[in-house]
Amino acid sequence: MDLKEKNNVIEETCVAGISAAYDGTVYMIPDNLEIEAEFRDISRQAKAHRLKGRRIVVVQGLGFVGVAVAAAIAEAVGSLGEALHFVIGVDLPTSSGYWKVAKLREGLSPVSSPDPELTRLIHKASIQTRNLRTSVSPKSYSLADVIMVDVPLDVHNRVSENGTDITIGLDAFKESIRVVGRYMRSDALVIIETTVPIGTCEKVVLPILREERANRGIKEPVLLAHAYERVMPGVNYVDSIRRFWRNFAGIDSRSSEKAREFMSSFIDTASYPLRELEDTASCELGKLLENSYRAANIAFIYEWTILAEKIGVNLFDIIDSIRVRKGTHDNMRFPGFGVGGYCLTKDPLLAQWSALNFFDTDITLRMTLDAVNINYKMPLHTLDLLNELSPTGLSGKNILVCGLSYLPEVSDFRNSPTKLLVEKLMEAGAKVTLHDPHVKIWNDKPDISITENLSDCLKNAAGIVFAVPHKKYLDTDLVSILDGRKPPMPFIVDSQNIISDEKAEALHNAGCRLSGVGKGHWRKRGYQWAK
Amino acid sequence: MDLKEKNNVIEETCVAGISAAYDGTVYMIPDNLEIEAEFRDISRQAKAHRLKGRRIVVVQGLGFVGVAVAAAIAEAVGSLGEALHFVIGVDLPTSSGYWKVAKLREGLSPVSSPDPELTRLIHKASIQTRNLRTSVSPKSYSLADVIMVDVPLDVHNRVSENGTDITIGLDAFKESIRVVGRYMRSDALVIIETTVPIGTCEKVVLPILREERANRGIKEPVLLAHAYERVMPGVNYVDSIRRFWRNFAGIDSRSSEKAREFMSSFIDTASYPLRELEDTASCELGKLLENSYRAANIAFIYEWTILAEKIGVNLFDIIDSIRVRKGTHDNMRFPGFGVGGYCLTKDPLLAQWSALNFFDTDITLRMTLDAVNINYKMPLHTLDLLNELSPTGLSGKNILVCGLSYLPEVSDFRNSPTKLLVEKLMEAGAKVTLHDPHVKIWNDKPDISITENLSDCLKNAAGIVFAVPHKKYLDTDLVSILDGRKPPMPFIVDSQNIISDEKAEALHNAGCRLSGVGKGHWRKRGYQWAK
Repeated sequence: MDLKEKNNVIEETCVAGISAAYDGTVYMIPDNLEIEAEFRDISRQAKAHRLKGRRIVVVQGLGFVGVAVAAAIAEAVGSLGEALHFVIGVDLPTSSGYWKVAKLREGLSPVSSPDPELTRLIHKASIQTRNLRTSVSPKSYSLADVIMVDVPLDVHNRVSENGTDITIGLDAFKESIRVVGRYMRSDALVIIETTVPIGTCEKVVLPILREERANRGIKEPVLLAHAYERVMPGVNYVDSIRRFWRNFAGIDSRSSEKAREFMSSFIDTASYPLRELEDTASCELGKLLENSYRAANIAFIYEWTILAEKIGVNLFDIIDSIRVRKGTHDNMRFPGFGVGGYCLTKDPLLAQWSALNFFDTDITLRMTLDAVNINYKMPLHTLDLLNELSPTGLSGKNILVCGLSYLPEVSDFRNSPTKLLVEKLMEAGAKVTLHDPHVKIWNDKPDISITENLSDCLKNAAGIVFAVPHKKYLDTDLVSILDGRKPPMPFIVDSQNIISDEKAEALHNAGCRLSGVGKGHWRKRGYQWAK
Repeated sequence: MDLKEKNNVIEETCVAGISAAYDGTVYMIPDNLEIEAEFRDISRQAKAHRLKGRRIVVVQGLGFVGVAVAAAIAEAVGSLGEALHFVIGVDLPTSSGYWKVAKLREGLSPVSSPDPELTRLIHKASIQTRNLRTSVSPKSYSLADVIMVDVPLDVHNRVSENGTDITIGLDAFKESIRVVGRYMRSDALVIIETTVPIGTCEKVVLPILREERANRGIKEPVLLAHAYERVMPGVNYVDSIRRFWRNFAGIDSRSSEKAREFMSSFIDTASYPLRELEDTASCELGKLLENSYRAANIAFIYEWTILAEKIGVNLFDIIDSIRVRKGTHDNMRFPGFGVGGYCLTKDPLLAQWSALNFFDTDITLRMTLDAVNINYKMPLHTLDLLNELSPTGLSGKNILVCGLSYLPEVSDFRNSPTKLLVEKLMEAGAKVTLHDPHVKIWNDKPDISITENLSDCLKNAAGIVFAVPHKKYLDTDLVSILDGRKPPMPFIVDSQNIISDEKAEALHNAGCRLSGVGKGHWRKRGYQWAK
């Protein structure tokens, strides 16, 4: 078997494999014949929709952004209530990609979200109006008037001392763009929504598209724009696309014009006028800057958290009193457990990477890198508090960690700060149990026991950590649950302001030792010692 | 002459000296007999006012805060429009203190301010209603129901690597408190408005007051509170006291109650309810935290400014587009020249000092200290841009620096960032001329020539820096002024977004070399090179 044959076999194996969704459902990845058959069907549909004056929009990448964007575009209607677009969501025929395509086809969201609008729109567009289809065929791009690029561009680091060690997944991103260039129509507009290093549109996307199009004999100029999303998981997921401010920039005035016109078709630009920036680099930088700012504002509070604990003051109360200063201080962040998610953890590093690799600079974004590093290590402070509460160490102790997702009430736990804490607890010999009302499986840590029975675990744990302020934890009556438990009572670290002062007093009186991140007043009251 | 005699002579000399106001007016400092005579008069007045049910309030320290606070308290009226308080403003009979007392007595503000309300209130209270008097007699404190402490507490550093080198003017502050304790009535309430290290009320003020009162046989508990001001120079100067949020905390519940009641008499607490914090340390920390946050947010933008310039993008435009995100990003700061004033430059250092000196910690407030250091050095970037624009160096060149105050339209130039630039320019051998529409005398730098003729200086300078965005500079038609000037045309650094893109283009076309802080797009267009 020569190499080419071998590769074909590998490809076949892969294509003919299975793909498991986040909820455990398993899908068979279609073979090339099936893919081709489906493409022909979608192609016919596209033709019919185009005859009705609809634009064909292909969304590349069905992750947290792509799914919501596809739903929002499919929902857009004209003045008579008629759908404006036929949307094709495209992802890869791989074990990690295919299930998203399959879910959407069933009218279900590949993303678990508390926003009922996402569920409604996807069901409507996939099952009722049928103007949202999905495909794994790269030929889909050939049908498109507009291609929205929502593929990931990952950073491999979680921390970086001076930026020189940062590596990013640019090759996978380039390959996505190359496929687009290989199939796209000469007059299609490409909009990059992916968060990319500054300069990517000009230095990476444009040359690749030109090269692929030149290979196909296309001479027309590329139509390309960057328009970054500000998607927020949560109850306003879809509206964070349709009803929110958006920046964009084209590589030339024609691209800008086309991008503006298209985005106006699904964004409420009457309330949220589009903002055109001078060039795509400005737009790319804007996205990285705004997330870096947020990361820095979170990190800034960390050192004041430590200070407040030592001094014996309640930093939550103080910050709450400062946040009345609207427009200057109302975004001050509260103390917390750590920072996760896909944006604040990587975007600052993307900016630093751009400075060193796409531009001829030796700039170190010092405060920006420091912010990422501080945020990453933040859970170690919770570990310190646990160690302090357990003078006999953590080895052999049952520790219940409550919360894995990076925001309350969402199931997204990419880059969860809980991971670092759990790893350190395991290194220390603790027996860790994890609870999260929104998470059933944690692929990163198959050896960690995940419980659905919060009460029982609270009753039996030697130590308890609250790492995410899920409503379930706020509603849990810890005092009652622990009532009647035989000593020793558990030690508890509240890293997210879950436990009120009244409850803390009651728990302390019941014999619990308590610490709270940013809760210096508990320390002043001696709660960290057994009563 | 023994030491005691010698000290008396020194005191006499000092008391019998002169005191020059910021506007050049010279006042004779009164002698002890005159001071005593005036005190007796004020004392009679106070008695009469008390018979009318008015509270006697002494404001210690007539600086930027004390003056506005005294005016606001004197203006407070009851339900029938009657004045609620008789206010005595006290400062020292020294060359730097007395002129403030004398100015107020004449019905004039010792602080130059664009707020017409300040002028109006001071004139009204000093000349018409006569319920605002001034004194240099420490006996004034014996008349007070309430003593507002508004004396300075300075930090001697402008930068600090790790915090251990920070020194502060605690002795002068202690002495102010000691004088209060020596004269105050047993039941008087002391409110500290001065920004102090965390722990000062409990660790410094309370013990001193107790000691001095014990010496006088007073046994009643001290009534003491901390209530920090958020005074902003500018057009809403007085309202930043009367109509703005305020935090406070008493050392016990009786002190809190009395402080709340008194502050409600001159603050619009219906619109801005007072916020009581758990203890004075919380309150002291709050003030330092909010100013440190602001300092950090300014510093954060600096590294992005450098990046934006290298990459060739307009950071002002990008930040403007991000600031639409209300509540999370709308306080993002624009690039600028540097940071001055009395608060953002010192409060972060006070916090660090407290951690090391008042509490048993080795905490380094890393991002907080970095912020101060970055902000302090920021003007050196403008120097770099000047050097780049002048390939033949700056030695012997006439450089016009426009702006000394730390905010537009105010005359306050304490800790002006212009100072560092000017010093470096002089070191480089440049001939520096300074302009500021609100400043006539710069005591720190008597060797610097200050001009009032902006146009002529603009016409003749080799290099021009815009360091403060005064309206006068925004309104200056630089293109017309430079029209007809013989080459070489000046090089110009716009450090405060004074020059529009259109004007920059015209200036470049006229032969000027230009750079702008945060204006990478000018660099991309080649404005830094001669056309």
